This record gives sequence, structure tokens and C-alpha cells, in this order.
Amino acid sequence: MREIDTKQVLLEEGLKALLISGYDGVSIGPVLAAAGVPKGSFYHFFQSKDHFVRTVLKNYAARYARLRDLILADRTKPPLLRLRSYFDKLEQELASEVPLGGCLYGVLAQTMATRSKALREQLVHSFQAWEESLFLVLQQAQKTGDLSPELDARAAAAFLIDAYEGALIRMKSDGVTAAFDRFKAFALEPLLAHKARARAARK
Amino acid sequence: MREIDTKQVLLEEGLKALLISGYDGVSIGPVLAAAGVPKGSFYHFFQSKDHFVRTVLKNYAARYARLRDLILADRTKPPLLRLRSYFDKLEQELASEVPLGGCLYGVLAQTMATRSKALREQLVHSFQAWEESLFLVLQQAQKTGDLSPELDARAAAAFLIDAYEGALIRMKSDGVTAAFDRFKAFALEPLLAHKARARAARK
Repeated sequence: MREIDTKQVLLEEGLKALLISGYDGVSIGPVLAAAGVPKGSFYHFFQSKDHFVRTVLKNYAARYARLRDLILADRTKPPLLRLRSYFDKLEQELASEVPLGGCLYGVLAQTMATRSKALREQLVHSFQAWEESLFLVLQQAQKTGDLSPELDARAAAAFLIDAYEGALIRMKSDGVTAAFDRFKAFALEPLLAHKARARAARK
Repeated sequence: MREIDTKQVLLEEGLKALLISGYDGVSIGPVLAAAGVPKGSFYHFFQSKDHFVRTVLKNYAARYARLRDLILADRTKPPLLRLRSYFDKLEQELASEVPLGGCLYGVLAQTMATRSKALREQLVHSFQAWEESLFLVLQQAQKTGDLSPELDARAAAAFLIDAYEGALIRMKSDGVTAAFDRFKAFALEPLLAHKARARAARK
């Protein structure tokens, strides 16, 4: 394998393991075995497990920032349609995961946020960037009149993330997708109801 | 210490450690040290770490079942007032935790649900019992006309849990309580809005 491929494979195996088992549940040995690379390669790329996990999180955040750019920031489509497409895409991704890994932010925040300052800062930044993307779409929908200007778009963006993360927890516990349906019915859809009210008010 | 006290102290120290560090982040050694008991005592009460964690979870579930009985099942008060009091109580408990431990169900579901069948079954059962308590209050509010009969009370009960669990994740990441305010504004308060509509419809 070329050096860049080896690093990539390690990061991908690390992500899979972290999503399922969390920071403390992951040992470097099984990651190396799954990636099929010797221990020396690992320390060629990463100073420590902590450095490895922070790099996995950085890559993960970059991947989802690209997804948001692709769907949420696509100004050729109406803002609320983009919002729906975005969560449809996340739902599809979750449906393909067996066992369900869920969201790395949620996994790491659950047990590492209060224990590692470096990881916590990275998580705070990752959540903020995600929130900002959702906020901008909601704000655009308010400008086009598709969403009520009375909605606190920043809080609503953050709430969508909260509710999504919580749905993942129950999905992991129950092994069924009902929590995602609830997310749509009780968190996402009420935003579309704000749309209806905004439209009705204009008429 | 009497035997029953020793076991109780071990379970309490185990709970504290599990809330912060999760299943894999907890070692028995530090728990024994924090509890001030020798290793032999541990294996007198618990066959294994797994058995210990399942006992912590069982006690935790029983404690919160009692809290729900006390507040949510108190039929001398109107149902929606009980619902508010219940989440106010949880909010107070969270505010007193430094660092924030959050909810043991959420912590264990995040990284153990897909790895331990026994723990997962216990989590499923714990979430169901919690959901049932919230469902009964919502159903009572529908019967008294304080809540619209159109609301899917079971799904709403489950959603309150999802949204609460998600808020805890962001609170752990950010170290501020804004997510709990969002939980109230976007998850809990809309139920009270259903109340207003139900009341309005009766007039």
C-alpha cells in the first residue's frame, strides 16, 4: 500500500471501531489488524491513540462539512427542500450501518467531553460548524418567506442537532428506526409548519 | 462498613465513574479505591465487571422509577404540571453535577447497546418503562382535555426522551445548559401548545 492509502485505511478502521465502541473501547491492536498494517506504520502517522482519535474526528468533521456544502449550501434549490434532503441522506446512511454506529460527535461527547480538553474543543467546534450550516439554511428560508421570521433560527438549528443525536441513542438501544421517524415528526416537520404559517400570513 | 453499605458505596462509585467515562472507561481498581474497599469485597458482591455494571444500571433504573412514581404518577396534581415538575427536577439534578454525568441509559446505549446483548435488553426495558410513565401522563392530560386527543401520546413520550438524551450530549460537549433550554422550548413547550389548542377547541 502507498503511504497515503495506509493512513486512510487506518483512519477508516479507527472510525468504524470508535463509532461502535467509543474512545475507551478502542484498542490500537485490533484497528491495526483490521487495517492489515504493522504497528510501526501506526506510529509513523500518529504520535498516540489520542492523536489518532483526534485525526479520525477531524477527517469525519471534514467529510460531513463536504456533505453539508453539497446539500445544504446548494442555492439552486429552495432552503427547506435542502434541509429535508440533508436529513434524508443522513437517514439513508444510518439505514446502511449494521450495527448502527451513529454519530462520532455524539459518541465522543458522551464519555470524552469532560475528560479530554483537546477532544472537547474539537467537538465544540464541530457541533458549531454543523449548527452554522443548519442555521444558514433556516435563515435563508426566513428571507424567502418560507419560514416564519419569529422562529429563533439559531436555537432551532441547534435543536435539530440535539434531537438527531438523541434519536440515535434510542436507535442504538432498540435497534429499530422508530426514533428517526419521531425526529422527523416532532423536530423537523414542525419547521415546515412554521413555513405554512409564514405562507398563510403572506396571503 | 456493614455489608449492605459496602455494596451500596461500590454501586454509587461505579455509577459516578460510568456516567463520566462509560463502560470501557471504567476500571474496577479506581472504583474500589474511591469506595475504600478491598478487591475481595468486590468479588463477594459481583461476579464480574459486566455483572457490576448491570447491577448499577438496575439500581439506577429503580431510583428513577421511584422519582417518576413520586412526581409523574401523583394524581393529586394536573398531568401537565407533573410533566413540567418532572423535567424541572431532572434539570436541577443535572445542574448540580460537576462534571456533567448525564443519563446512564444514554451513556451505555451509545457504546454498549450493539456489543452486549444483556445490557441492551436492560436498556430497552429501562427506556420502555420511562416512556410508559411519560405516556400515561400525556394520556391522562388527553382525558382531562388538557392535551389534544390528536397527539400521538406514545410517540410524543418517546420523543421527549430522545430530545432529552440529545440535549445531554450537547451539554456535555459545550459545558453550558443552553441545550436544556432548547429542549424545553422546542420539545416540551409544544406539548403545552397542544394544551392551548385543546382548550381553545372546547370553548
